Amino acid sequence: MQSILRLAGLLTLINCAASAHAEDGYDLWLRYRPVETPWVERYRAASTLLVAPRVPVDAAGSELARGLQGLLGVNPAVAAHVTHDGAIVLGTPASSNTIADLHLDLNDLGPEGYIIQSMTIAGHRAIVIAANSGPGEIYGVFHFLRLLQTRQPVDHLSIRESPHLQLRILNHWDNLDGTVERGYAGASLWNWHKLPDYLAPRYVDYARACASIGINGTVVNNVNSNALSLTDGYLEKAAALAGVFRPYGIKLYLTARFTAPIEIGGLKTADPLDPAVRRWWLQKVDEIYRYIPDFGGFLIKANSEGQPGPQDYGRSHADGANMFAAALAPHGGVVIWRAFVYSGGPNEDRAKQAYDEFVPLDGKFDSNVLLQVKNGPVDFQPREPGHPLFGAMPKTPLMLEVQITKEYLGFSTHLVYLGPLYEETLHFDTYAKGAGSTVAKVIDGSLQGYKLTGMAGVSNIGADRNWTGSQFDQANWYVFGRLAWNPALSSRDIAEEWVRMTFSNDARFVAPAVAMMMGSREALVDYMTPLGLAHLMASGHHYGPGAWQSIGTRADTTPPYYHRADAQGIGYDRTTTGSNAVSQYAPALAAAFSDPSLTPEKYLLWFHHLPWDFPMTSRHTLWDELVIHYTRGVDYVRQMRRTWATLAPFVDSERFAETSAYLGIQEKEAQWWRDSTLAYFQSISKRPFPEGFAPPGHTLQEYEAISVPYAPGNPGWTAAPFRR
Amino acid sequence: MQSILRLAGLLTLINCAASAHAEDGYDLWLRYRPVETPWVERYRAASTLLVAPRVPVDAAGSELARGLQGLLGVNPAVAAHVTHDGAIVLGTPASSNTIADLHLDLNDLGPEGYIIQSMTIAGHRAIVIAANSGPGEIYGVFHFLRLLQTRQPVDHLSIRESPHLQLRILNHWDNLDGTVERGYAGASLWNWHKLPDYLAPRYVDYARACASIGINGTVVNNVNSNALSLTDGYLEKAAALAGVFRPYGIKLYLTARFTAPIEIGGLKTADPLDPAVRRWWLQKVDEIYRYIPDFGGFLIKANSEGQPGPQDYGRSHADGANMFAAALAPHGGVVIWRAFVYSGGPNEDRAKQAYDEFVPLDGKFDSNVLLQVKNGPVDFQPREPGHPLFGAMPKTPLMLEVQITKEYLGFSTHLVYLGPLYEETLHFDTYAKGAGSTVAKVIDGSLQGYKLTGMAGVSNIGADRNWTGSQFDQANWYVFGRLAWNPALSSRDIAEEWVRMTFSNDARFVAPAVAMMMGSREALVDYMTPLGLAHLMASGHHYGPGAWQSIGTRADTTPPYYHRADAQGIGYDRTTTGSNAVSQYAPALAAAFSDPSLTPEKYLLWFHHLPWDFPMTSRHTLWDELVIHYTRGVDYVRQMRRTWATLAPFVDSERFAETSAYLGIQEKEAQWWRDSTLAYFQSISKRPFPEGFAPPGHTLQEYEAISVPYAPGNPGWTAAPFRR
Repeated sequence: MQSILRLAGLLTLINCAASAHAEDGYDLWLRYRPVETPWVERYRAASTLLVAPRVPVDAAGSELARGLQGLLGVNPAVAAHVTHDGAIVLGTPASSNTIADLHLDLNDLGPEGYIIQSMTIAGHRAIVIAANSGPGEIYGVFHFLRLLQTRQPVDHLSIRESPHLQLRILNHWDNLDGTVERGYAGASLWNWHKLPDYLAPRYVDYARACASIGINGTVVNNVNSNALSLTDGYLEKAAALAGVFRPYGIKLYLTARFTAPIEIGGLKTADPLDPAVRRWWLQKVDEIYRYIPDFGGFLIKANSEGQPGPQDYGRSHADGANMFAAALAPHGGVVIWRAFVYSGGPNEDRAKQAYDEFVPLDGKFDSNVLLQVKNGPVDFQPREPGHPLFGAMPKTPLMLEVQITKEYLGFSTHLVYLGPLYEETLHFDTYAKGAGSTVAKVIDGSLQGYKLTGMAGVSNIGADRNWTGSQFDQANWYVFGRLAWNPALSSRDIAEEWVRMTFSNDARFVAPAVAMMMGSREALVDYMTPLGLAHLMASGHHYGPGAWQSIGTRADTTPPYYHRADAQGIGYDRTTTGSNAVSQYAPALAAAFSDPSLTPEKYLLWFHHLPWDFPMTSRHTLWDELVIHYTRGVDYVRQMRRTWATLAPFVDSERFAETSAYLGIQEKEAQWWRDSTLAYFQSISKRPFPEGFAPPGHTLQEYEAISVPYAPGNPGWTAAPFRR
Repeated sequence: MQSILRLAGLLTLINCAASAHAEDGYDLWLRYRPVETPWVERYRAASTLLVAPRVPVDAAGSELARGLQGLLGVNPAVAAHVTHDGAIVLGTPASSNTIADLHLDLNDLGPEGYIIQSMTIAGHRAIVIAANSGPGEIYGVFHFLRLLQTRQPVDHLSIRESPHLQLRILNHWDNLDGTVERGYAGASLWNWHKLPDYLAPRYVDYARACASIGINGTVVNNVNSNALSLTDGYLEKAAALAGVFRPYGIKLYLTARFTAPIEIGGLKTADPLDPAVRRWWLQKVDEIYRYIPDFGGFLIKANSEGQPGPQDYGRSHADGANMFAAALAPHGGVVIWRAFVYSGGPNEDRAKQAYDEFVPLDGKFDSNVLLQVKNGPVDFQPREPGHPLFGAMPKTPLMLEVQITKEYLGFSTHLVYLGPLYEETLHFDTYAKGAGSTVAKVIDGSLQGYKLTGMAGVSNIGADRNWTGSQFDQANWYVFGRLAWNPALSSRDIAEEWVRMTFSNDARFVAPAVAMMMGSREALVDYMTPLGLAHLMASGHHYGPGAWQSIGTRADTTPPYYHRADAQGIGYDRTTTGSNAVSQYAPALAAAFSDPSLTPEKYLLWFHHLPWDFPMTSRHTLWDELVIHYTRGVDYVRQMRRTWATLAPFVDSERFAETSAYLGIQEKEAQWWRDSTLAYFQSISKRPFPEGFAPPGHTLQEYEAISVPYAPGNPGWTAAPFRR
């Protein structure tokens, strides 16, 4: 009898699952699952009629129809005029007579803004989604659907939105062979081999997801660039992708390898002041625009980590950037020049190099050049202070670059919500024009009057079914887009939005899930690199701990270069007695960062080498505080696991199981991080663990013996240039 | 008005699609979509009650429930006894009293056989699916579901099935870094990095698909092996996969790198007669069985293409194989030793080497060793004569190895059904014991009394959503499994089975789709390598034509080594005036293959170098016949495109569009193959194209200039051994 009951239970399970594929994360935050009572009735009353002009229906109209169908189970009638209550009127003044007749004030919305306005039209209740352009319409539609997805009232809407930043761009570090540098979500989304003839349906869903959060540009190839990307065959492939993205307001950009004129152009030099080189790029850019009339421009990594650049010819970054700028300007394209450069020796402070190289060039870049600056001065660490370039180049538009893929933050198995990291950067006060000179105000142009503005995120997207390698990593794609649209948004609000759309509006799920996410980044900082430490990851692939690894291709990629632990203490002295990197900050900041008692503890060891017994504000010694932080990080992960286990009733089985498995991996790895890193530091500090804190489970030698040769995201040959 | 209609049409489309994910090929031939009238009523009448004993329900029971739910929309009641008409009784005599009480004759079914029998039990109509084991049950269930999927009557069933071959194994050439050698379906299915903690749901669906066609073994790593696969960490990962596969009757196998004792064992030698080496393998094998109690054994590629092997120590293949055999025998494991070896110089005939090396070793292998022999003597070409080893080693069990992944047959964009290729091999008459000594009879043991039998297929499976890179390539996975179960099945019947389950039972679809498939391999032979030509593919990645490429890492990987075209003629003289490879065949065959007039035209240039004006049976000259064949191949593809276009009403939009796009690519590439290869041969033959046959669209120089550096499936470093 029991067996019969079990089989019956199984059959019921199968019954529920058979009618549709299980939820697997493919639908992202655009799931459009049926809305429950009483909301569904309210929303249906507001969605009885569509007044949409475009023939054939454009991306905005079809998305709206798709959303209403999924959420409300309705196919509203379509009409040319508002004939009864509950109409949704969509369009631009140019495309829709109904919109034009409303004489809405759309002037200051700009090309990408929109309004969502409850109105009475011809005596009937209506919601107007109006914009000046197709992309504006799309953004408005996604905003409206988001209201439904998150169960907001739609009765008295008066929404006016424009993006705060002009360029909101994903950077895909994707190689032509299908691998992804620092990618943890499978192979590249782009199947270059099958392009241009085969356009995977997934490309459209990628564009929909990007547009839904306001992303309007995508650099489809790796910054460690391959000149072949600029040959005919690959331009034809890129053009096919651009054609998919265009209806969603997304421009395609490419990286440009500086030595392409030599490698694919047959020239002897790539000197940016050489007339033949300039002519080659001019013609190449003209050719690109023949393939892609709305091509966005070039993203360029030059003279960094072995990439060629203008300095190889005795020229400056400005010389290099302006060569491309001149070729792109006639077409309206931009040059995005990366400020991530380092090439110094072991005695130089890598954190200083970008500032030293670029500040002298302020004012020397053409008007269609932006400088893309990472959030911190080293390299996407779990925590860094703000980059000193922000605020230091008033005449050069600086774009913020953040990393969405979690190269240094646990790959795709650690649940780490990056919203707080991005927010911390955006709120970082540069003091460039006194208190309140935040990075957000620098990059949105309001502080120093930039004409061009933007923000870039290094993509975490791959061919994995769930796009990003894990369910929760989708939130990092999401929060990037939302903050690039409006850097003033709260990362907590965005997390809640995402949770509601991606999983459930049930408060019993939303509150604990958001709380987990919000503390997750600090927990990772605790179990990896607390108190201002950085770059303690294993070399090369950056997977797992490696604080003890002193052998690397160059000193400034090895952990000891950063932590500088010795018998006396730990930390990198960046004050006047050390590298004096503090001098790159505005005086108020430099003064604070020079004094351990004024330096925020979260940055303490970034700026100071301090004795192991240094007294912390907690009254613990620095050593004890380190142990406390590492332990706290592990405890947080353990608590996330417990919390998640209680959330099973609110989540479908596949996404629940996947997340459970990853939290198990995260707990194991957090413990590994804590134990191994503390075992190593203890071998130097010679201090005991404070009472009540468990010692490492293994010896330091055992931790040192662990090697992970095939950790993903580290195709060593990605930077290898194409050779004829 | 028109715009309204269009929008309404769009909404209807979205409506239909919204309730479930679109068909995308993920479900393979196990789609279990609702059966139509009148079949559904007939099947429901036969599926009112399940009598299944297992607690908890095993893989067979849950698959049956899933299938009936999907196909018939029913959840049959579950009972311990047959209480009314329409019962399905599932089990083994040991697991089910009902089955035991029937006293069925199951003795000669063996461990994997099953019966499906219509019976009257306790006065009621019932269908009994009975076996001696869990895997037998599963095979029976899948067979029963296949009857429903293909709309066969189920009223008077009397089916008795046992596999004709014991080992039916997929070989995955998957690397630990997630790439797949000769893989055209995305990254590896195995996420080694996330194993063992994360078990992707896809692993279960893989096992289901394999079991549904009788596959009972899988080698999960590349034959170009990495010793790391045998370390603790990777064995733990492999064990996790084995745990997923076990309920489906699938054993896990690993490749073994011959020098593992040196690379991961710290020994100085890998000499198979060295006691320390033998002890190391003994302990390693014991360790593997602690992780995987039902481990299948090792697949080994040694002394071939740079892989290490016993010859490096002056020992024979038998010495090497028997060392592994001794370690595996106590556990019931087998050694599968590959006969694919070549290392000769440019003046040797690569086609001869395997025979020369292995025939002298016949009788010298231990009883748990099988020799795995490719279908032809060179390397998975579109067409080769049968391998001369078949029939030539009566004392050594030979296993047939075919390639499912289309390394030389158009990757995943050419629609090529491999059933006819496999069938041609299985029907190839070795004349080893006179006429009728087919390869099928060699490998099933009936000809020469092998105790072990088997067939291996090099997998075409990857992480692509559709598993195999294209919809139609799923058929090649399918036909491999079905023929390995029973080499006597007809490839045409299997194609029809697959089409019905994968797409539609509508005769208006089935007939043209099966016809397309059945001619597709011959078409590819025509547009790539007709009349016995071989290996004309570009070097390295083997994508696209390269008949002119004379530079390679070794002569016998370059096309001119194979086609030997010169002013006099074309073809490889393998008669007594040439390499005398014909002498490796049985006398009757050798005589036929020595005489152009007796050699089947499909093998003509494989065995003979003939003048361009050689008169063919068609009365055309050889040159003209070549042009005719190449042209016919392109025409066939063009016709497939036209046919497919008419089939839109019967196929969902996503799979239809994908296949349409690929047929477009195939036509373009078939034309490229024809034009470039004929342009090259014409530059040597100096003959004009026959009247009515279009000359190439470009010059030979233009074709020669085409390079495809990132063609997939060719990670050059895959064979690189792990170095400490």
